[in-house]
Amino acid sequence: MFTVYLSGEIHTDWREQIIDGCKDLKINFLTPVLNHEASDGAGDVLGSEEQGFWRDHKSSKINSIRVKNYIEQCDLAIIRFGDKYKQWNAAFDAGYCAALGKPYITLHGENIVHPLKEVDAQAQAWATKPAQIVELLKYTLS
Amino acid sequence: MFTVYLSGEIHTDWREQIIDGCKDLKINFLTPVLNHEASDGAGDVLGSEEQGFWRDHKSSKINSIRVKNYIEQCDLAIIRFGDKYKQWNAAFDAGYCAALGKPYITLHGENIVHPLKEVDAQAQAWATKPAQIVELLKYTLS
Amino acid sequence: MFTVYLSGEIHTDWREQIIDGCKDLKINFLTPVLNHEASDGAGDVLGSEEQGFWRDHKSSKINSIRVKNYIEQCDLAIIRFGDKYKQWNAAFDAGYCAALGKPYITLHGENIVHPLKEVDAQAQAWATKPAQIVELLKYTLS
Amino acid sequence: MFTVYLSGEIHTDWREQIIDGCKDLKINFLTPVLNHEASDGAGDVLGSEEQGFWRDHKSSKINSIRVKNYIEQCDLAIIRFGDKYKQWNAAFDAGYCAALGKPYITLHGENIVHPLKEVDAQAQAWATKPAQIVELLKYTLS
Amino acid sequence: MFTVYLSGEIHTDWREQIIDGCKDLKINFLTPVLNHEASDGAGDVLGSEEQGFWRDHKSSKINSIRVKNYIEQCDLAIIRFGDKYKQWNAAFDAGYCAALGKPYITLHGENIVHPLKEVDAQAQAWATKPAQIVELLKYTLS
Amino acid sequence: MFTVYLSGEIHTDWREQIIDGCKDLKINFLTPVLNHEASDGAGDVLGSEEQGFWRDHKSSKINSIRVKNYIEQCDLAIIRFGDKYKQWNAAFDAGYCAALGKPYITLHGENIVHPLKEVDAQAQAWATKPAQIVELLKYTLS
Amino acid sequence: MFTVYLSGEIHTDWREQIIDGCKDLKINFLTPVLNHEASDGAGDVLGSEEQGFWRDHKSSKINSIRVKNYIEQCDLAIIRFGDKYKQWNAAFDAGYCAALGKPYITLHGENIVHPLKEVDAQAQAWATKPAQIVELLKYTLS
Amino acid sequence: MFTVYLSGEIHTDWREQIIDGCKDLKINFLTPVLNHEASDGAGDVLGSEEQGFWRDHKSSKINSIRVKNYIEQCDLAIIRFGDKYKQWNAAFDAGYCAALGKPYITLHGENIVHPLKEVDAQAQAWATKPAQIVELLKYTLS
Repeated sequence: MFTVYLSGEIHTDWREQIIDGCKDLKINFLTPVLNHEASDGAGDVLGSEEQGFWRDHKSSKINSIRVKNYIEQCDLAIIRFGDKYKQWNAAFDAGYCAALGKPYITLHGENIVHPLKEVDAQAQAWATKPAQIVELLKYTLS
Repeated sequence: MFTVYLSGEIHTDWREQIIDGCKDLKINFLTPVLNHEASDGAGDVLGSEEQGFWRDHKSSKINSIRVKNYIEQCDLAIIRFGDKYKQWNAAFDAGYCAALGKPYITLHGENIVHPLKEVDAQAQAWATKPAQIVELLKYTLS
Repeated sequence: MFTVYLSGEIHTDWREQIIDGCKDLKINFLTPVLNHEASDGAGDVLGSEEQGFWRDHKSSKINSIRVKNYIEQCDLAIIRFGDKYKQWNAAFDAGYCAALGKPYITLHGENIVHPLKEVDAQAQAWATKPAQIVELLKYTLS
Repeated sequence: MFTVYLSGEIHTDWREQIIDGCKDLKINFLTPVLNHEASDGAGDVLGSEEQGFWRDHKSSKINSIRVKNYIEQCDLAIIRFGDKYKQWNAAFDAGYCAALGKPYITLHGENIVHPLKEVDAQAQAWATKPAQIVELLKYTLS
Repeated sequence: MFTVYLSGEIHTDWREQIIDGCKDLKINFLTPVLNHEASDGAGDVLGSEEQGFWRDHKSSKINSIRVKNYIEQCDLAIIRFGDKYKQWNAAFDAGYCAALGKPYITLHGENIVHPLKEVDAQAQAWATKPAQIVELLKYTLS
Repeated sequence: MFTVYLSGEIHTDWREQIIDGCKDLKINFLTPVLNHEASDGAGDVLGSEEQGFWRDHKSSKINSIRVKNYIEQCDLAIIRFGDKYKQWNAAFDAGYCAALGKPYITLHGENIVHPLKEVDAQAQAWATKPAQIVELLKYTLS
Repeated sequence: MFTVYLSGEIHTDWREQIIDGCKDLKINFLTPVLNHEASDGAGDVLGSEEQGFWRDHKSSKINSIRVKNYIEQCDLAIIRFGDKYKQWNAAFDAGYCAALGKPYITLHGENIVHPLKEVDAQAQAWATKPAQIVELLKYTLS
Repeated sequence: MFTVYLSGEIHTDWREQIIDGCKDLKINFLTPVLNHEASDGAGDVLGSEEQGFWRDHKSSKINSIRVKNYIEQCDLAIIRFGDKYKQWNAAFDAGYCAALGKPYITLHGENIVHPLKEVDAQAQAWATKPAQIVELLKYTLS
């Protein structure tokens, strides 16, 4: 069983496209929590915070339990950068993978090639479409 | 001798402020190559490339020789996010530090607290001014 | 299958509350030996000791076979500090987790926040009630 | 040069006794910040906090920069448990050492042998007086 | 289940001989992609390249996703050097195994003993025929 | 499933006693090849050697494929020293375990306590009878 | 001080060109033993061997003491493939570097780009002339 | 500076022969405590023990502080087996080196080749005379 972690953008259907395209392959797909509001409020159960920084802090640390475990378990990570938002967490995941020696593939448009050059430099590949990721996975598991 | 790596934004004088404020401390400060043009063209000596992606790729991999060694040598990294640009390389460095267990402190304005929440969650501290970093270093080496 | 190690206090039913609350989740819960007398006498089968120090020494080293293996296998540790006893073994487990990069959550009352500050500082979260741990596990595995 | 980290109790002169007794040996002694108030307020420079938990959190994470680096640099840690306070940070440091495979010696009275049994079980030795530590260091560097 | 990675030459039937000879053993055999043309063009789905260097680069990095994972998963690698071609990738795999501490056995003719001396020096054994590998596997799993 | 590696003496039935005593426990017992002659001649299939040193060398390296994998897989090693022979391989296995942080228990008579002091010092326990090992395993898996 | 290991071809003056070009930089250059005959006979002092395989074996293992230590000490390796010989040891060193995460640069002609594709794929750069290596080192240490 | 750890037999002058032969080389030689009585009583300063096992235990753990640090610091270990005693600690050190990937050379007579086969199998070389070790060190540092 090959394990793939799908990191990054949560507002388009790129994960579904990849998972759907690979339905005949033995792949265990892992993702972070994809519900934006639930993710931002992951720590609220521990008590409310007046300052935004501490609310974010509590939630991010709880989210990292899942993210850290899944990155360490995966054989390959796909890291997606969309057109909006800062997406520093995706770049953070890429750096985390690089330090662990986990292979990753980036998925992003041509317009952000230059600012992503350090992230792409450590990647095994750069793809622009989910269908390419599907092809690469089919090949890798052929 | 304590070693500090100064990662991130290269268009303001935050590094000078920190280095200047710590001139009485025994700290070995390390930085990436700070000349933007030289950094973008680090690989040109190996031959020109028609596609921007490959020029970036060659230069980034050469830059990573220095960055990787310096992060692994440091006792602490300071990771600065400024007001402009994508700065995915700074978030990448933070992820790299986190995976290695290298302590790091982030330095950024309050306006980007929310998008940096995953990066801040693994940091030892978040500062908004270089002078605070100087104080923390003085304390740490007291 | 997600694996959770439940470390610390053995005189209240916090483990049962968590395990019970998670009965619909695919979690493999691990614990140290919870029988206080059996644990203190784990080494007696190897011969009796006149000095308390050596009896403790033999038993603790035998207990560490289980504890060490379970901490290294877990994806998350919950570390509980109760109202009584020194509980240095719980803090020891937390330090062990921190050095390995294993995520852990502390579970303790507000009255011991200050003496536990170094232990909490490396934790992914601090909870005061088993029910909060249950919620965090449900979220993490959602 | 042999490096020794002196962890734990800060209210008696055990560190001075050891350092003084070893003045003819080539030992580099490292300690945490020993000023109790400065340590508790290490993070105040980053802004005040209304809740005690967050003030402690910020200060402890800053203190951990020094502690983590010093433990990783040392060849041996001495971990002292005194008669007062919870001292969970000392047990935490011991667990951290154990996971890294760093040798450590505990220094504590006979009255707390039983609650420290897990901490002592992973130690290279248990001493009751600083003068014994001095003898062991003289022997080790003979 | 014992896992064996079969690295190197792809133009003779040495893999089939080994797999066939071990059909009664519980061995999970892993291989790189063995179709030469597919392997050389693994990256073509990401866009064509005018320069041979970059086409090779893209394909090799994609192939390394599989190779790296399989080497890290295996309990033993068999590394085959045939009579033709440079086969630097086989020597590269051997060096990769050596650095990870993965045991490997080389399989090659007597005529290339001298140029392979550094590769053989770190191997657990040197065999000249697939049937010998079969015998060694039967013995190891006896 | 708990995995136990049984290292050392091959001329008495201590392994059978332990395995038999644990038949109601979920333990996966691993051993080296126990047939003395087969073990000494493990490398003969690769060609005969005139010098005893090289015959031993080839056989030992082949045996190490199994031993190394099994030690790395085990949760606990039992290392048995009998009354005869040099048994340096058992002490070698103990050192290997110690460096990896694998817990091990020694099993030997009281008459060789002094020469085994360094080996016992890193062990989790010293037992003199297989029945004690059985009790310790029952306790550990209780 | 930056440390560079110069691996590979020993029959041309590429090492001298690099060392000479970098004489104004603070670089500690390391090399294997470069005397071909001395290297082949490194083990002869331990007794002569009738079989070539064992003579090579003894010498290669002795050479690996130096090579292994120097690769692990270096910040960057330069791996040179010339026009002659099999040079499997150079590819082996590259694989060793890759597994350790040591950055390396390859130095070879355009005619062997295709057979070196797996080796180049993990390199930080591919250069064709020693003068380019000199430029890259000047840049990296600027 | 090259660091060599000299492990094993303490009753002949093999260490002096090697150190003397290498006086023109830049080698930092490390040894365990060589005074037999002092070594056996290393722990006596912590209080006397009635049972021999616990006296040995305390002393061996204290000795391991030095041994562990020196093995981890060395670039090469020389492990000497003499004609007398069990010398299990020397085999233990060899296993420790092997697991860490530290190169070592054994030094022993031909009469104990067979019982040392597992220890020699992981060594970089087997020598019978200190003068050979001197030659190998001169070569390695040439």
